[in-house]
Amino acid sequence: MSYPAHCDTLLAAKTASGKSFDALAKEVGKPEVWLAALFFGNAVTDDATAAKIAKAIGCDDEAAVQAMAGRGPGNVGVAGGITRGRGWEWPPRDPTLYRFAEAVMVYGEAWKALIHEKFGDGIMSAITFRSELKRVPDPNGDRVLITLDGKFLKYSDTDDW
Amino acid sequence: MSYPAHCDTLLAAKTASGKSFDALAKEVGKPEVWLAALFFGNAVTDDATAAKIAKAIGCDDEAAVQAMAGRGPGNVGVAGGITRGRGWEWPPRDPTLYRFAEAVMVYGEAWKALIHEKFGDGIMSAITFRSELKRVPDPNGDRVLITLDGKFLKYSDTDDW
Amino acid sequence: MSYPAHCDTLLAAKTASGKSFDALAKEVGKPEVWLAALFFGNAVTDDATAAKIAKAIGCDDEAAVQAMAGRGPGNVGVAGGITRGRGWEWPPRDPTLYRFAEAVMVYGEAWKALIHEKFGDGIMSAITFRSELKRVPDPNGDRVLITLDGKFLKYSDTDDW
Amino acid sequence: MSYPAHCDTLLAAKTASGKSFDALAKEVGKPEVWLAALFFGNAVTDDATAAKIAKAIGCDDEAAVQAMAGRGPGNVGVAGGITRGRGWEWPPRDPTLYRFAEAVMVYGEAWKALIHEKFGDGIMSAITFRSELKRVPDPNGDRVLITLDGKFLKYSDTDDW
Amino acid sequence: MSYPAHCDTLLAAKTASGKSFDALAKEVGKPEVWLAALFFGNAVTDDATAAKIAKAIGCDDEAAVQAMAGRGPGNVGVAGGITRGRGWEWPPRDPTLYRFAEAVMVYGEAWKALIHEKFGDGIMSAITFRSELKRVPDPNGDRVLITLDGKFLKYSDTDDW
Amino acid sequence: MSYPAHCDTLLAAKTASGKSFDALAKEVGKPEVWLAALFFGNAVTDDATAAKIAKAIGCDDEAAVQAMAGRGPGNVGVAGGITRGRGWEWPPRDPTLYRFAEAVMVYGEAWKALIHEKFGDGIMSAITFRSELKRVPDPNGDRVLITLDGKFLKYSDTDDW
Amino acid sequence: MSYPAHCDTLLAAKTASGKSFDALAKEVGKPEVWLAALFFGNAVTDDATAAKIAKAIGCDDEAAVQAMAGRGPGNVGVAGGITRGRGWEWPPRDPTLYRFAEAVMVYGEAWKALIHEKFGDGIMSAITFRSELKRVPDPNGDRVLITLDGKFLKYSDTDDW
Amino acid sequence: MSYPAHCDTLLAAKTASGKSFDALAKEVGKPEVWLAALFFGNAVTDDATAAKIAKAIGCDDEAAVQAMAGRGPGNVGVAGGITRGRGWEWPPRDPTLYRFAEAVMVYGEAWKALIHEKFGDGIMSAITFRSELKRVPDPNGDRVLITLDGKFLKYSDTDDW
Amino acid sequence: MSYPAHCDTLLAAKTASGKSFDALAKEVGKPEVWLAALFFGNAVTDDATAAKIAKAIGCDDEAAVQAMAGRGPGNVGVAGGITRGRGWEWPPRDPTLYRFAEAVMVYGEAWKALIHEKFGDGIMSAITFRSELKRVPDPNGDRVLITLDGKFLKYSDTDDW
Amino acid sequence: MSYPAHCDTLLAAKTASGKSFDALAKEVGKPEVWLAALFFGNAVTDDATAAKIAKAIGCDDEAAVQAMAGRGPGNVGVAGGITRGRGWEWPPRDPTLYRFAEAVMVYGEAWKALIHEKFGDGIMSAITFRSELKRVPDPNGDRVLITLDGKFLKYSDTDDW
Repeated sequence: MSYPAHCDTLLAAKTASGKSFDALAKEVGKPEVWLAALFFGNAVTDDATAAKIAKAIGCDDEAAVQAMAGRGPGNVGVAGGITRGRGWEWPPRDPTLYRFAEAVMVYGEAWKALIHEKFGDGIMSAITFRSELKRVPDPNGDRVLITLDGKFLKYSDTDDW
Repeated sequence: MSYPAHCDTLLAAKTASGKSFDALAKEVGKPEVWLAALFFGNAVTDDATAAKIAKAIGCDDEAAVQAMAGRGPGNVGVAGGITRGRGWEWPPRDPTLYRFAEAVMVYGEAWKALIHEKFGDGIMSAITFRSELKRVPDPNGDRVLITLDGKFLKYSDTDDW
Repeated sequence: MSYPAHCDTLLAAKTASGKSFDALAKEVGKPEVWLAALFFGNAVTDDATAAKIAKAIGCDDEAAVQAMAGRGPGNVGVAGGITRGRGWEWPPRDPTLYRFAEAVMVYGEAWKALIHEKFGDGIMSAITFRSELKRVPDPNGDRVLITLDGKFLKYSDTDDW
Repeated sequence: MSYPAHCDTLLAAKTASGKSFDALAKEVGKPEVWLAALFFGNAVTDDATAAKIAKAIGCDDEAAVQAMAGRGPGNVGVAGGITRGRGWEWPPRDPTLYRFAEAVMVYGEAWKALIHEKFGDGIMSAITFRSELKRVPDPNGDRVLITLDGKFLKYSDTDDW
Repeated sequence: MSYPAHCDTLLAAKTASGKSFDALAKEVGKPEVWLAALFFGNAVTDDATAAKIAKAIGCDDEAAVQAMAGRGPGNVGVAGGITRGRGWEWPPRDPTLYRFAEAVMVYGEAWKALIHEKFGDGIMSAITFRSELKRVPDPNGDRVLITLDGKFLKYSDTDDW
Repeated sequence: MSYPAHCDTLLAAKTASGKSFDALAKEVGKPEVWLAALFFGNAVTDDATAAKIAKAIGCDDEAAVQAMAGRGPGNVGVAGGITRGRGWEWPPRDPTLYRFAEAVMVYGEAWKALIHEKFGDGIMSAITFRSELKRVPDPNGDRVLITLDGKFLKYSDTDDW
Repeated sequence: MSYPAHCDTLLAAKTASGKSFDALAKEVGKPEVWLAALFFGNAVTDDATAAKIAKAIGCDDEAAVQAMAGRGPGNVGVAGGITRGRGWEWPPRDPTLYRFAEAVMVYGEAWKALIHEKFGDGIMSAITFRSELKRVPDPNGDRVLITLDGKFLKYSDTDDW
Repeated sequence: MSYPAHCDTLLAAKTASGKSFDALAKEVGKPEVWLAALFFGNAVTDDATAAKIAKAIGCDDEAAVQAMAGRGPGNVGVAGGITRGRGWEWPPRDPTLYRFAEAVMVYGEAWKALIHEKFGDGIMSAITFRSELKRVPDPNGDRVLITLDGKFLKYSDTDDW
Repeated sequence: MSYPAHCDTLLAAKTASGKSFDALAKEVGKPEVWLAALFFGNAVTDDATAAKIAKAIGCDDEAAVQAMAGRGPGNVGVAGGITRGRGWEWPPRDPTLYRFAEAVMVYGEAWKALIHEKFGDGIMSAITFRSELKRVPDPNGDRVLITLDGKFLKYSDTDDW
Repeated sequence: MSYPAHCDTLLAAKTASGKSFDALAKEVGKPEVWLAALFFGNAVTDDATAAKIAKAIGCDDEAAVQAMAGRGPGNVGVAGGITRGRGWEWPPRDPTLYRFAEAVMVYGEAWKALIHEKFGDGIMSAITFRSELKRVPDPNGDRVLITLDGKFLKYSDTDDW
């Protein structure tokens, strides 16, 4: 597994620009987690937004801009055709990534049970989905607060969705 | 992989009691996600809380109560010595569980990048951690909102934590 | 991995009843693929439907009926809380099962490209989903015709779903 | 795992031509899913068709044309000798691809049971096979409709096929 | 992975009967490899043949007879619904089994190339298939001669099979 | 896993020569399956045969000739020191290759049982071994006939081999 | 993976008898490593030897004696039909077992190169094979000396073995 | 997994020199198996020996000499810091390598039992270890004789080693 | 993977006795980590120590005492013949266990480099080895201090150990 | 898995400088294990320290210095964003690395039990963590002494950390 090649280009330009994802997200008017996912090849956008982001980080690599808009070797040439989830092994050995997986391993069944209890038989969509990550001050040490916010999708034995 | 044997006992008693995790959590004064995790063998508690929960769901199986308090075959006999993460294969094939993993696969790198940007080099603790799951009404379909809330732990090359 | 215990009970009763899934599906007014999935522990239903199915196949095993309705060891005691996908190893070694996987391996990228071309960036839902399997007469040998019919879910960088 | 090298060439030419698989399929008189599979190295064709496709997308890379016709490093030099199924890891992490796999995991046993019930002991061929993918308008959100259409092949203990 | 339970019953009865697969195959008028596969749960037969085999080996275990005919826990209750390929891990550690796999690993690509050269793009069916195993006398040590005999199935981009 | 580099050279020369493995095998006086295996890096030969094969396909790449004779990066520089079995993942996803594996999975135990019954405790050698693949005309569709022909090797608890 | 059930019976009887494998091997006139392998289900013997061994360790469990002679659930009922290699996971986590694997990982290529250099292209048979394990006194600490002694089998492109 | 780059250099030089490992081992005064392991990146030596070996095979590639002495990309720059065991997949598919693994799988438990019986609880060291491989003439076919000779290391619950 | 059966017996008796491993270790005069390892089937002891431990925790289960001394189903009947490392999956999902593995993944290469730098080419023995775990008070939160203390074993190309 | 590219640059410069990690650690005032981890891409530092280390080893490769400070292809461009744990396969085949893993496999459960007994339910942090490796003289052979020193983190069902 590896990142598409344009990710390093984008990340290097962002580093050179000195702008944070937070600042960039405000500048281009997009959600911060989504924007970071785009920089790792896990989201795709339209041409106008791709151009705006490239300009904001001073990136003039046309291939990287095309790749953000879903064209090029990284996304097999069809609109939106990126391959998500390529950047890291699973389960991840990097400790920061691993803790996300561990939270799922330890609390996943509890979440599943609560979804079934609060909604019935179904899932939290990971497509009709948004996420935020915030730094929350705390006297015992500041905290990372991540929200997963996905539409409930129910299983059905009829066509009544 | 399988649930410890006492989980089915607890879950059957809870079903018979007709009480939701939400109601039980309020009755015993514990967080709802934590309580659900306890029912799946992914958390442990003290004797008093174990007894209170057992009473609330009308469970008189002493072994199950002991297991909640960290004693018995399910937890190799030492205080707090449960083995977390046993209940499901990884990656999970159940669609409800899988979506949690997918969210991590698609957004994990973004979260990691934002943690490093907002805090520096380190992780979100999955131990000094709490979680909530809520149903949020939405005209386009109600949504599942999960929060992961963990203390930031930094890597250090000195003893200054 | 193994089937929940109640599956053998249901399947044995169905065999004894001499009724096909097709006939049963018509008798209980449910889709045929969904009904077959229920017999393998990959779907769940309400109490009334569970009772109707049990009666149709002459099954008087109360635990099996409860399990169809999402209660018992097979589904960890919460409504709809069955664990789907437990019945077979992956990739499957059974040739009939393997061919389904092979079709996905050989044509999956083509389907993905066509989805992106016809709809944009997104997925075919496997939850808001229905399926049929028919026998189609053919002079060169009858054919199996399976339809996968799922709602398109798009990725978005806004809240506009 | 990776795509053969000529796939990026073909996909880039197609992107530059602005033609959809649907339009191309009509232009060259071939099935759309088959044509998309060819672009991902999962199908092979004769010289005339390869030339016609190359012309339709304005591709003048001789190696890519040869590869479509089953010659070159991508297919080890024998007629039809392509290696199918190389383009993605299994199970796939990309969500669009994963849902195809999930449908098989959740409904595969049901399909197998129905095949046995409607035909007897055997399989749906994945070779004597065709597939279509359509966009079906739906007021609750348009749907992806995929058909798997394969000849039934029966197991036999005699030579009577 | 393990053999279905009825296999041990059948094999024990066969051992007690003192009959070889060769003799049994002649007695019941079925191919020898197919018959051996049936004893390991990798084939299924009709009621009459199952009864004939049971009688030939002096087996009066009704469940085992039913299982040969595709009914019971070993085959999830539908006609022909046995799960093939369950009896051994893959790749196999047993040396006798491993050598079959090794022959495929070392000569598989050669066979594939020859199939493509002699037939075009396609496969040897493993369903429309028969196999024999013979002992061939040889002054340098007798030899095992196995034949794999399967119908060629071609890939096609039209409906012309 | 990948083919040694010289395989593409040999296969391209063979393709350019227009000769089939069958014709080449006759021209150089070697078995056809063995010859095809040589082209995929799964066999090795002496200098004279390597030179004869190279001449027959018009290949003047000295490194490829050396590699056929067991010298070069592909075979770590010792006589006969090629590494067999490198060319494809296991289990293979390519359908033509997979069917060979499937035949072993479904019939392997039967073959093992017949070997034990006809010879006693031992194996079919995959080294003292030869194989053929033929096209057999059949009115219901021509068939692929593969023979595995290996010396029986017995286990012994004495030195009496 | 697990030992066949009769192994514990045999080992318990041997422990009760107080006899070492060395003493037993001399008593029954068989090689010591072979005898130990028999106790772990990795070898099989004739009825007379099985009876002699059983008597020597005071074991009167008929099923265990039958299993040594290749009959019963442990060996699927055909002569010599035991399944070797079942008793431990691979790679083994037990340190004593792991060191054998490690020696192969570190020195395997060297052995392979020396075999090719001293014999030509081929293998050391693991079937026409014997092994010994001795304790060799050494002032720096006694040493374990294991010999692997297998017939060389050559690859050939003719029938000249 | 792959060999460090300098291995091909060393092996090519050795091939060109026409010297066997046996001859080289005598020339440089080192054990033959150890020397072969060095050529595959599984051993390391001092500068003087590295220079002597390089001279003996006519290798003037300084990087390769440095690598033998534990310096360069192949060994991450620290004395003795080579990474052993990198050259082949595990379990190995090459038949010559596989047989070594198979011997361990079939006889490993027997060896372990004999070590415990002859020495007590402990292991055969694979570090304080030496190995030889010889060709032993035999009228029934010459034999490969490999010795594994490692110091016994005992487990202890005190500091008395 | 699972603990040998006697472990639950021993742990339950210890829990009932109310004694800590620290107290028990002092009472029986053995190292604390070693003693805990014994309770999980990862160490073995002599009869006298086994008896002393059993008495200290009030355990009168003879089979458990035998198992501690290396006899019974848990250790295949030979002295010291326990199988270490059976109790948990690898890599472990339990967070407490996982952190030990993570420390090795993140710092293992550093330790290896330091061993090579301070000792030369070799390893830290995990057999001639002892370990301690202490609670160290710290105003920022008490700390777990684990020591790994193993004899250095050097690789050698001579017999000079 | 592989080391980031800058690691070889740093290690080569260090080798050329002739300085040990011990000497370097003292020169730059950082812990030795941490420093070694930095050289393998498993730690990150600030610009000033990176410059000081580069100067100490005479490295003037700007990209390598940037990489130590968390910028460049090796760390995807965000502060502290290195990916830890990339340098070796897991479980490792290199014997020096493997022994660390083995110690965890054999003693991990004992450590976990002692943590629970001495602290309660929780973990040893691998982030708020330090480690040392020392050479300890011993008349029976010098010993490697590694300390793992991590803060205890407790699980809690309240917010009281």
